[in-house]
Amino acid sequence: MRTGASQQEIDDVVGKARSLELGVQLNLGTDKTVVALLGGNTGQIPTDIFAVLPGVESVTRIMKPYKLASREFRTGNTIVECGGVKIGGERIIVIAGPCAVEGQDQLMQAARAVKKAGASVLRGGAFKPRTSPFSFQGLQKKGLELLAGAREELGMPVVTEVVDPHDVKLVASYADMLQIGSRNMQNFALLTNAGKSQRPVVLKRGFSCTITEWLTAADYLLAEGDNRVVLCERGIRTFEDSIRFSLDISAVPVLKKNSHLPVIVDPSHAAGHFSLVPAIARAAVAAGADGLLIEVHPNPKEALVDGLQSLSLTNFAALMEELKPVAEAVGRYI
Amino acid sequence: MRTGASQQEIDDVVGKARSLELGVQLNLGTDKTVVALLGGNTGQIPTDIFAVLPGVESVTRIMKPYKLASREFRTGNTIVECGGVKIGGERIIVIAGPCAVEGQDQLMQAARAVKKAGASVLRGGAFKPRTSPFSFQGLQKKGLELLAGAREELGMPVVTEVVDPHDVKLVASYADMLQIGSRNMQNFALLTNAGKSQRPVVLKRGFSCTITEWLTAADYLLAEGDNRVVLCERGIRTFEDSIRFSLDISAVPVLKKNSHLPVIVDPSHAAGHFSLVPAIARAAVAAGADGLLIEVHPNPKEALVDGLQSLSLTNFAALMEELKPVAEAVGRYI
Amino acid sequence: MRTGASQQEIDDVVGKARSLELGVQLNLGTDKTVVALLGGNTGQIPTDIFAVLPGVESVTRIMKPYKLASREFRTGNTIVECGGVKIGGERIIVIAGPCAVEGQDQLMQAARAVKKAGASVLRGGAFKPRTSPFSFQGLQKKGLELLAGAREELGMPVVTEVVDPHDVKLVASYADMLQIGSRNMQNFALLTNAGKSQRPVVLKRGFSCTITEWLTAADYLLAEGDNRVVLCERGIRTFEDSIRFSLDISAVPVLKKNSHLPVIVDPSHAAGHFSLVPAIARAAVAAGADGLLIEVHPNPKEALVDGLQSLSLTNFAALMEELKPVAEAVGRYI
Amino acid sequence: MRTGASQQEIDDVVGKARSLELGVQLNLGTDKTVVALLGGNTGQIPTDIFAVLPGVESVTRIMKPYKLASREFRTGNTIVECGGVKIGGERIIVIAGPCAVEGQDQLMQAARAVKKAGASVLRGGAFKPRTSPFSFQGLQKKGLELLAGAREELGMPVVTEVVDPHDVKLVASYADMLQIGSRNMQNFALLTNAGKSQRPVVLKRGFSCTITEWLTAADYLLAEGDNRVVLCERGIRTFEDSIRFSLDISAVPVLKKNSHLPVIVDPSHAAGHFSLVPAIARAAVAAGADGLLIEVHPNPKEALVDGLQSLSLTNFAALMEELKPVAEAVGRYI
Repeated sequence: MRTGASQQEIDDVVGKARSLELGVQLNLGTDKTVVALLGGNTGQIPTDIFAVLPGVESVTRIMKPYKLASREFRTGNTIVECGGVKIGGERIIVIAGPCAVEGQDQLMQAARAVKKAGASVLRGGAFKPRTSPFSFQGLQKKGLELLAGAREELGMPVVTEVVDPHDVKLVASYADMLQIGSRNMQNFALLTNAGKSQRPVVLKRGFSCTITEWLTAADYLLAEGDNRVVLCERGIRTFEDSIRFSLDISAVPVLKKNSHLPVIVDPSHAAGHFSLVPAIARAAVAAGADGLLIEVHPNPKEALVDGLQSLSLTNFAALMEELKPVAEAVGRYI
Repeated sequence: MRTGASQQEIDDVVGKARSLELGVQLNLGTDKTVVALLGGNTGQIPTDIFAVLPGVESVTRIMKPYKLASREFRTGNTIVECGGVKIGGERIIVIAGPCAVEGQDQLMQAARAVKKAGASVLRGGAFKPRTSPFSFQGLQKKGLELLAGAREELGMPVVTEVVDPHDVKLVASYADMLQIGSRNMQNFALLTNAGKSQRPVVLKRGFSCTITEWLTAADYLLAEGDNRVVLCERGIRTFEDSIRFSLDISAVPVLKKNSHLPVIVDPSHAAGHFSLVPAIARAAVAAGADGLLIEVHPNPKEALVDGLQSLSLTNFAALMEELKPVAEAVGRYI
Repeated sequence: MRTGASQQEIDDVVGKARSLELGVQLNLGTDKTVVALLGGNTGQIPTDIFAVLPGVESVTRIMKPYKLASREFRTGNTIVECGGVKIGGERIIVIAGPCAVEGQDQLMQAARAVKKAGASVLRGGAFKPRTSPFSFQGLQKKGLELLAGAREELGMPVVTEVVDPHDVKLVASYADMLQIGSRNMQNFALLTNAGKSQRPVVLKRGFSCTITEWLTAADYLLAEGDNRVVLCERGIRTFEDSIRFSLDISAVPVLKKNSHLPVIVDPSHAAGHFSLVPAIARAAVAAGADGLLIEVHPNPKEALVDGLQSLSLTNFAALMEELKPVAEAVGRYI
Repeated sequence: MRTGASQQEIDDVVGKARSLELGVQLNLGTDKTVVALLGGNTGQIPTDIFAVLPGVESVTRIMKPYKLASREFRTGNTIVECGGVKIGGERIIVIAGPCAVEGQDQLMQAARAVKKAGASVLRGGAFKPRTSPFSFQGLQKKGLELLAGAREELGMPVVTEVVDPHDVKLVASYADMLQIGSRNMQNFALLTNAGKSQRPVVLKRGFSCTITEWLTAADYLLAEGDNRVVLCERGIRTFEDSIRFSLDISAVPVLKKNSHLPVIVDPSHAAGHFSLVPAIARAAVAAGADGLLIEVHPNPKEALVDGLQSLSLTNFAALMEELKPVAEAVGRYI
């Protein structure tokens, strides 16, 4: 309460709390009275309800606004299985492939090479959210078919992005795992549908969303009853302009502390330039990430989308060799 | 080109440019060669295509990536008409109403009061994108019907948010103007559908998107052939924690310089607290905004959504009185 | 306390608090125990002392870490007098002049023009903190002499920046008011010396400092016993790249709510371009600022420092005319 | 140039460039003319000089504003020697010790333990820049004497922060290496004096400064003729609030690409909490850092400053063991 708040104002806050069946305790300081609100679900009550009352100076949340994604809800680590591959266990999982599926040759060339180099899951974009309406928008259904074909041939699960809530069923009928992109982390219609898809979901962090908001978005997925959610850090927007997004490496230990969900890192979208990908990938593994999501293209110079951040097949194979000892150094393997 | 780039590397860049029918000119500095690429549509060519070539140090864009929204595409100011109200002209337009439509009484009470105080357009949310899955999600179709009822009774156009691309037709059949929210500024499926809706659109700025990205998103709408787009600044995410979002007041003159579209400001979502709304609203008008979008609730203490940032009916009427002399001070009226 | 914290851990926190003579109250929630620490000076106790104890999940500060600058310490508005000019009263004070003092002609030409147009205080830099060691560093002592000369001739107080703690006495012997620049907001040696200088001080906001940190820095000045401190908002660093710094317009009402000190705004350093200065200046006055700090140069094209953001004498005179009705619209005058 | 710029405006830009002895080349696009300015030192010419001219739309810098710190100025890696310890070579250097020197016992206990665990350089603060004037300000000269005593006893070089330009000589007479703190990265008076001190300098990144600004600040030091500068990444300010500062892991590869100077990482100040330090430290080594700067305290619960981010002696020894295999995984040793 504000310094000098009246007894009536304090009583009104207490009354409001009681009407919501919250416990109340008054802390009488020398300058101010602090009203402590107690209850099992205070994290889900908007603070505004109290902040708007006369005499209230500010409302500070002690309980976090997410629940299902929290380490307190589930103390053990969740392991997400995707087409036989376990994400969140001792093995560090590498998901690799082209940013966009451009055609069968391009996809299969990339897929065979990443599998040979040790990747466990194939990625490839069929629906591309592009910042400009004049850019290539993806092969869409044709792209999904090509991904399914690659899975058949190589026995490798595939993950692909879904951008429209009404495409979730279609995409889920082809892909082993769905990806929610950074710009859709708070697209709640999409989250709700993806949560119902009976597919594991990779939830990328919104590039300007806090970790708390990210875990709250994960709650949208988890609220549908499926706990197969993988969190993917991919860089946040900051003032630094030497890189496309600043990879938040501390997100890895912070998530491990506060959530039971597996955490992977996408160094490609953060870096924006292939030359920075290996250092960030090594750092992610050393920090404790459960996996990596890496863009690889058989011919980056001819890529229709994001060629600059894609590793060539040779560079990807070299990076996988670099990563093995780092994984071992932290007690894991690739 | 990097210092010491070979002639072959320079030739490859030139060859790539020519294959895209771009003009080329070489600037031979003492340390570096700079390759200038010339052509009418360079703004729409991804820089990656060149950045990925060997010997290239960096690619700097001189032309902007947006076109239809630019002041160069259209030098005069666009005036957007919405149900008889002109946005972008001499009159400063105030759009006001509750964050969420909660019921007929609440909506009509707010609507009558904001109209009486001088607002021109009624706002109210029927579909609410909420950061938590446990929060009130809006009355949806029932909310649209109530908004249409308010329009009938008061002869006042209504604007409401659309969050799912597949709801665009439904929402457009009730509302005079569609609103695209901050979290959907880069929801390209939604933008494309809204662009086809034959309704004017208020495009809110993504809270972490640059002005360039915002105008590029406007191009998505404009590319569908309808030029009735209104830009709405609503605060950006920064490190400052005394306010929910930092209103970017400079966006007003920057947009006026670079775009022909009308610009309005939403002080409510930036402030997060009703006590900060009047100062920001006055500043917006003084800076040259064409309008304001303000949340008003007949009883903020009981609001289901965002009560803290909503003005009471009395406070809204007082603010309208405050704004009149400010509008006149900059040669306009409310 | 963490969920499941032991009684011993709770007791240790309570013991630590008691050893610091703090009051203690336990709030027993269903999931967690919250220990409330009570006392008049909790704002000045580092939270780490408690956060480091076993079983503590996090420490949340309810009291603000600043005191002397707070509205609670002094409820009335402080009016700072500088050479006969009152800052913080009904009149909006304009401080204007060149970024750097370059010579007598340049300074006097600017000084006469800004005085004629209605400015009350002359500004001019003698010591210039420059981001590059190869840039012009200011006329230093010679610049101070020229400023003093301008005061003699025009009867106008002068303000100039001090960058080295050991120059405070020298600068104070020439200037009526000292300025602490953005990059020195947390240069504590400089703050302490400036606080002892017996001159009023303009404290610019660090471009990445929160308002709380800013007011805490003001406490450094105020702790020396002189309450003549003027806060100057000059833009913060954000991701937006169309402007040099994003002016935080909401800082004006937030400071007015939380502090008794006068608030001025520097539109020039935020804008970085003269064409954006007028809109931001008008917005600042409309938002409730007590004054403006504006860079003016008789010949911006030939300025040695920051020519692009400087208004010409003609543009400055035009802006002053624009500002008069805005000031009146908010019940003040210039 | 702006679309439609006149021939006279173009000629004026060309004339200005020639008067500065720059080469000029015109690139005539279909919409715009671009004037390329050529010369060896364009990086040191303020862009404003041209941006202010009529008809100019914007000025884009191709050459970087720093020179001496750049990889182009010196292609090989610089190895900085500090009291016999080489920073920037194959060995990863760990600098460790208490945030603040509190007394002989505390310092010696920490010093012996960090040496035994494998640290090469002892750190300890004697002059403490504190955000609140009511906090502990350091032992100052007494602290320097204790550091020198530790060096004598243990044969271990010491590094300590200098905050006032006039203390540089004093600090340099006790310490083997000077540290410039984050809040002083652009304290140019301090940089110039430190550059003249004949001591190697650790230059911490300003918490809101870009890498380009950081390397430009390094130029201030290098311009004095001593090339013994070590860059220290310590986290940047972002919107994320789960950690004190977001460690910019990509700064490591970006600096390695653009500069010849050694790069170390301070995980303690970024994390703000000891539990996050190990993951960030491992990531830094994996990303290619040449060293670490870590806060260690014999009794973090009793630390006067930053106890929460300090590792206990046991935790530090454990971390050193964790780091060894990570260093080996990237071809180095600790």
